[in-house]
Formats: sequence, C-alpha cells, structure tokens
Amino acid sequence: MNITIIGGGGFLGQKLARALVARGTLDGRKITGITLADVVDPAGIEGTAVPVSTLRCDITDPASVAQAVTPETDVVYHLAAVVSAHAEEEFEDGMQINLFGTLNILEQCRKLGTVPRVVFTSSIAVYGGEVPDPITETSLLNPQTSYGAQKAMGELLVNDYARKGFADARGVRLPTISIRPGKPNRAASSFMSSILREPLNGQAANCPVEEDFRHYYLSPRKCVENLIRTAEISAGDLGRNRILQMPGRTLTIRQMIDAMTAVAGPAPARLITWQPDETVRGIVGGWRFDIHAERALALGLEADESFEENLRYYIEDDRPGG
Amino acid sequence: MNITIIGGGGFLGQKLARALVARGTLDGRKITGITLADVVDPAGIEGTAVPVSTLRCDITDPASVAQAVTPETDVVYHLAAVVSAHAEEEFEDGMQINLFGTLNILEQCRKLGTVPRVVFTSSIAVYGGEVPDPITETSLLNPQTSYGAQKAMGELLVNDYARKGFADARGVRLPTISIRPGKPNRAASSFMSSILREPLNGQAANCPVEEDFRHYYLSPRKCVENLIRTAEISAGDLGRNRILQMPGRTLTIRQMIDAMTAVAGPAPARLITWQPDETVRGIVGGWRFDIHAERALALGLEADESFEENLRYYIEDDRPGG
Repeated sequence: MNITIIGGGGFLGQKLARALVARGTLDGRKITGITLADVVDPAGIEGTAVPVSTLRCDITDPASVAQAVTPETDVVYHLAAVVSAHAEEEFEDGMQINLFGTLNILEQCRKLGTVPRVVFTSSIAVYGGEVPDPITETSLLNPQTSYGAQKAMGELLVNDYARKGFADARGVRLPTISIRPGKPNRAASSFMSSILREPLNGQAANCPVEEDFRHYYLSPRKCVENLIRTAEISAGDLGRNRILQMPGRTLTIRQMIDAMTAVAGPAPARLITWQPDETVRGIVGGWRFDIHAERALALGLEADESFEENLRYYIEDDRPGG
Repeated sequence: MNITIIGGGGFLGQKLARALVARGTLDGRKITGITLADVVDPAGIEGTAVPVSTLRCDITDPASVAQAVTPETDVVYHLAAVVSAHAEEEFEDGMQINLFGTLNILEQCRKLGTVPRVVFTSSIAVYGGEVPDPITETSLLNPQTSYGAQKAMGELLVNDYARKGFADARGVRLPTISIRPGKPNRAASSFMSSILREPLNGQAANCPVEEDFRHYYLSPRKCVENLIRTAEISAGDLGRNRILQMPGRTLTIRQMIDAMTAVAGPAPARLITWQPDETVRGIVGGWRFDIHAERALALGLEADESFEENLRYYIEDDRPGG
C-alpha cells in the first residue's frame, strides 16, 4: 500500500507519516511506501522500515499533483491548506490552494480511474452564522470566513467525487489542534497553542481573548490516530455523508490554563500576557464550540480523555529537549 | 438601474424580464435597462418602455462575463445552469457551468469593485442524504447529485463574496417549477411539468414515478414574483446566511392530477401514461419534499395559494393559443 501525504511537510503530516511508519499497516495491508509532498521540500524521515520519499508539489498545478498522486497511489491524505487568517487577508491564495488545490487532487483521482482512498481534512471553521446550537453532523454549514467557505466547498467535492465513484474519498473536520508544536502560524487560532506551548517552554505568550473564551480542541496525537482511523472506515459505514466531525473537547481558556498548572505547576501561567486583539477576536468570535460528533465516535474516532492528558502528550512528544 | 439576467434566454429569464418591464422599478428605483444574456442569442422583447438588449454570453469565459456584467450593472440575476440529469451524465459540463460559471460571475463583481446586487438561483437539489426531516433553513446540505453539489458550492461562494463585500449577493433555492412552459428538458424533474402541460395541450405524457411520489412545487408566476422580492431584501434583513428557501407546496402526483381535473375536467388526466423510468426514479427518489421556508415567508416570499391556482396561471400565461 502506497500512501501520499499532501501537506506532508507540516507538523501534522510529519506526525502522521511517523505514526504510519511505526504501525507498518493501514486497513490491514502492509504499507510499502510513503510520499511526503509539500509546496516546499518536506523534511524526510530516515532509517525507517517503510521507505519514505519526499516531493515538492504545488497543488494549484494539476501537472504537479499528477506527480504526487500516481497510478501506484492507494491512499492520499490531503492536509494542505492556507490557514484562516491568511485566507482572510489574501483571498486569492485561499481560493487557489483551499478550493482549487482540493479540486485538482480529486480531478487527478478521477483521471487515474484507480479510485484511490482520499482523506480530506476539513475544519470546524465550516460552522458559523445563525445556525442554532448544538452543532451536529446534520447542521447547516454557514462559515463566516473564506477559509471555512473553501473547506465547506471541499467537503461537497469530496462527497460528490465519492458518490460518482471517482475516488473513495472521505473527510474529517478537525477541531482546533492544541497544543500544536513549533512556531505560531497565520491561523487565527494560533494563540490557542501559543499560550500553552510558549509558557511550557519557559517563554512569554499573549492571549488575545478573554479567559472565558470557549472552543473545541484536540491533541495532535489523537488527531493523527483519528486520521488513520478515518482512512480505515469502510465505504458502507460512511453512508451518504462522507464527512465526519472529528471528536474534540470544549474548554474555556481558563480551563486550559488550569490544566497546565495541574500538569506543570504555577510558573508557566505567569508567562501569559492578556493584550486584546480585535482582528483575532473578530474571526474566532464567530467560531462554534458546542459541537457534537456522535457519528464519528460510533465509527471509532476519539477525543482526548482530558486536557491534562493532552498537555502530557505535548511534553512527551513535542517539548524541545523534553 | 441596469439589470443583467444571465440565463435570460430561458423561460424563467424571459418571464422575469417581462415582469420587470411591466413593473418599471426595482427596490424603489427606476429600471433604465435590461440585458438578457445567454449562451445562445436570447429572444428579445420589443416595444417596451424599458430598453431590453440581448447578448450572447458564455459564463465559462471570464471575458464573456465581463461583457454582461459591467461597471453600469446594478443588479445581476444568475439563472444559468446545466440541469440535473445533464450534470449527472456530463460531469465536466456541470462543473464548468454550474460551479465555474457562478464563480466567474462573482469574480467579475469583485474585479469591478462596484458591489452589484447578485441574485443566485439555487435549488432544492442541495438537500438529500441522511439529514432528518423536516428540512429547514438550518439543515445540512448533503446533495446526492452533482447538480445539487455544484449549487451548494455556489451558495457558499455567494455567502462568502457577500461577507467580503465583493458583491451584494444573495441566493434563493427554487422549488421544482411546475408547470414549466415549453418543451421537456434534461432536468430529471421535467416530467413534473410534462404530465400536466402536455395533457392540458391535448397531448400524451408519461409519468415515470408512482402517483404517491411527493415533491415540492411552485408556479413560474410566483417564482418570478419571489425573484423580484429577493432582489429587494435589504442586506441587514438577510443576516449571515444570504440563501433563502423559496416557499413552495408539497404535493403528491395524485394531488396534482386531481387539481388538473378540478380545473380542466377529466379529459387531460386520461392522456397520462405510467411507464416507470429507473434512471429518473434514482435521481428524484433522493430529493426531499418536507421542506420549510419560514425565513423566506417572513421576508415576503410566497408559495402558491393552491395547485389549482398554479394550473390557472399556466392556462392564463403559457398555454399555447390560451
């Protein structure tokens, strides 16, 4: 089984590749190769039993996609995206990468005729507007960002290409991933990791929202496990809506900080500053948190047991020198 | 006020143009010109107080769209589409016209910077799948046809271009229009007009579904009134979801035929044959009929009073020699 991870240079693509290598199989079949494709050369993974190759791939270019998704590709993970604040500032970038990039990947599958399995990562940014709580898997998608709109269009493409038999495609709406390792990025949600990650690393970080701001989170470790599980669900079990809500936990900023204090003592929380940022508040204030994921839970996807557990995963998996 | 009707050669575009001409104003402003744009030269409307011009326009070509939507355009009606069975058989046609055509129109508005009002016609084909009844304006869109998927993507584009201030765009999901004048077309719903129109014209017609098949209908006359009303709703009244469900009535085939007998006597119903068509059943069997349109009703859109009234409109407005 050959697996291509588009967006394979990102932290999630790298973690997914390592988890797949460690596992050695997917859906009961031996993994024979993994290709990490990204817009800049992805970091490789050396010395693994499963060969891991890397490829520079521009998903806005169908010819480039054809190099990443070939007749030998059995499974495609599509993790590539221009994130929320970036897509909001640079509308054309978001359209090109989030909408047309997704379309190019699905079109390549259609042209191949090999019906590869495709796992598309959508986002809870598809929710919004005046849709009543709770948000369930049958709630209207009324995104209030271009990123969310582009992801929602990607979901419709995934369902239609699957229904037509062009790809065994399925999608999963990621909660906000926290604690995301590495550096802040252009996602409006970036602070939702920074305010924990930087203090745990002994550095200051700013929280641009109130401490009662409530949101829906998942750890990278559980996210990767869920991405693997999503590729293994049978077409019959997915039914006519091939998009699942990946389970997460709803927490206030205060609850997250209290969990950090429980796990790492009182010092990190003192490194948080509280400077409001109206741009960030404008974007994340429209996001939804009362999100239910019964169908995904029934299909074997999981949330973190607790946010404390989530913090311990960060310390074990990602804290520099940890 | 200058109005462009894309899809202006179709029966709905032509009826809308005549209704606008008869009215003379839209949203309290005098209509100074109407442009009918379509992929084949639309029929003109002669001798009107408001000048009506015609234009050949291929919405898959941005340069062609730029001729139809100009700096002088105040309102764009986008009625052009590849219909359901056509989009299902010829996937690329549907993508090009229904998805990229809509995108090209919105992109032209963005380039102009004049923020024209855009009225996009979506369809109840956006509903489907395992979403529970009743279908409300906050139900998930889980279309089971490519046509429906492309219309749902158009809705997301409309909302996002409006939110970004690129166009004062809004959309409305049309019920199945019956009785549609003229000839059968490639819509899977074509028979829902044929089985009434042809018998009322003294001709035979086939019904490919059972008489208890239930669906959601509106007359062309009410549809045109609702399209005019949709252009007049203020941005504030639309809120954060700029797509409305146009009100209709849910009826069985038997109820429609009984209404025809009530209005035109028993002869027409005897001209209906009952040959099943599995392809048509496969498409329309996934369509939804338990559809509620409270928000649109509150904003002044209307359903027909009865299906008898709908039949009388056909006889008054459209029956050849009638």
